[in-house]
Amino acid sequence: MHIVHTIAALWQVLETAESIALVPTMGNLHDGHLKLVETAREYADCVVVSIYVNPLQFGVNEDLARYPRTLEQDCQKLREAGASVVFAPLDSEMYPSPQTMTLQPGPVADILCGASRPGHFSGVATVVLKLFNLVQPDVAVFGKKDYQQLLVIRQLVQQFNLPIQIVGVDTVRTATGLAMSSRNGYLSAAQLEAARQLYAALQQLVRSVHAGEQDVALAQQAALQSLSTQGWQMDYVEVRRQQDLGVISAEDRALVVLAAGKLGSTRLIDNIEFELA
Amino acid sequence: MHIVHTIAALWQVLETAESIALVPTMGNLHDGHLKLVETAREYADCVVVSIYVNPLQFGVNEDLARYPRTLEQDCQKLREAGASVVFAPLDSEMYPSPQTMTLQPGPVADILCGASRPGHFSGVATVVLKLFNLVQPDVAVFGKKDYQQLLVIRQLVQQFNLPIQIVGVDTVRTATGLAMSSRNGYLSAAQLEAARQLYAALQQLVRSVHAGEQDVALAQQAALQSLSTQGWQMDYVEVRRQQDLGVISAEDRALVVLAAGKLGSTRLIDNIEFELA
Repeated sequence: MHIVHTIAALWQVLETAESIALVPTMGNLHDGHLKLVETAREYADCVVVSIYVNPLQFGVNEDLARYPRTLEQDCQKLREAGASVVFAPLDSEMYPSPQTMTLQPGPVADILCGASRPGHFSGVATVVLKLFNLVQPDVAVFGKKDYQQLLVIRQLVQQFNLPIQIVGVDTVRTATGLAMSSRNGYLSAAQLEAARQLYAALQQLVRSVHAGEQDVALAQQAALQSLSTQGWQMDYVEVRRQQDLGVISAEDRALVVLAAGKLGSTRLIDNIEFELA
Repeated sequence: MHIVHTIAALWQVLETAESIALVPTMGNLHDGHLKLVETAREYADCVVVSIYVNPLQFGVNEDLARYPRTLEQDCQKLREAGASVVFAPLDSEMYPSPQTMTLQPGPVADILCGASRPGHFSGVATVVLKLFNLVQPDVAVFGKKDYQQLLVIRQLVQQFNLPIQIVGVDTVRTATGLAMSSRNGYLSAAQLEAARQLYAALQQLVRSVHAGEQDVALAQQAALQSLSTQGWQMDYVEVRRQQDLGVISAEDRALVVLAAGKLGSTRLIDNIEFELA
């Protein structure tokens, strides 16, 4: 496995690659990331994992400074997972001059997580496009845990005619159901106990919609309330269309329930895709 | 020469290309465009000329509807100029669904022409990135007449790590000095006579700066005044730094004077690069 920190070195190791799959990450890798790598290996002979904590996608009051950086352990895990190349650039390599030009994802970036994280998806789309151009992958693999992010990337590829196949991978969970996330590491033992309730509440909501609950707003409200009483400061719980995360209407069948909320100062997200008969 | 209207057909004819140079145009080709093609031929074996009047870069009160479409004559000229492929897509091919995601060029798009054409350079950058992704050229050739556009494209390539060499080509002029432009076709005989004064005024301004005129603002004002008395509704005449079109300071040496103004309802632009000793 090659570990490279510069664009020049990246291009050198990629010169002989037949097909390339890219897994963009911010490092501090867990089993969710490793499943992305495992999936990527099915698509290409050369799997590039980028590890880069992208300042552009963090708001001023967010956790950029304290975001966990664990490159050595990450590389060990990636070696075992069969990655071919780790690209871990410095800020000076990714942004040698100020990034005055950015991608603006449009309306999809203003709803759900975008509403409380202005500029976040613009920062994500911008760095992902830079990585796409640097790595020139045939395939790029993203987790479905960041569901809205995955939609932004799909729109980027479709609307900008990028010749890249986007693969979404199901969320990996702990034994308690908690979605794997680097930010879980911020949680105290008590918060970890509360954290599992997020997925449980989403499951409950999906069950009640499946059971014929007509009033989705009411079911969302119940989930919000239940989580609040368990110590969550919830941002949203919303049932949306899978395709565009639009508000659902009676004929929509492919749905996803998404939620975001804070335990203390730690913001967590989760979602479940489901289909109505 | 292949003339293709769909992305699928484009990809088919490009399959065997060794190296590709792209010349993006809006058609209605004149000698300025043909010089771009001639330049492109020096860089690659396959020269792709795109002909597409991009709605995204026109403001609501601009000349999108009346912009001249002359595909047949254009193809004849391109055949003679030695182009390999003409890519002339329909709107439905370039924008099969609404382009909700766009490139935002940042501060460079807010000055000079950007100040009076909000959204213009975002539309340009967005469609050019789409064309880059579709054609995957090694080289792309643009005219220096659209000087600010060329800077936006250079920043796009640099800030988004595109592996494309950008080549700027000197403006081609009529015998009277008028910069070649598809919009010259809108001018009446009397306006054509007045149009030549734009380049003359810029030349005069460059001469006076070369002659030691310290007060550039005064020289700009003189050019504006002289053009106004000749029937122009001037937008701006500005001496700027070549590199970033920033306001000049005493140590700057590589300069460009740029101007934009209207004759009747026709907006024309021009510029001259010059160096101080």
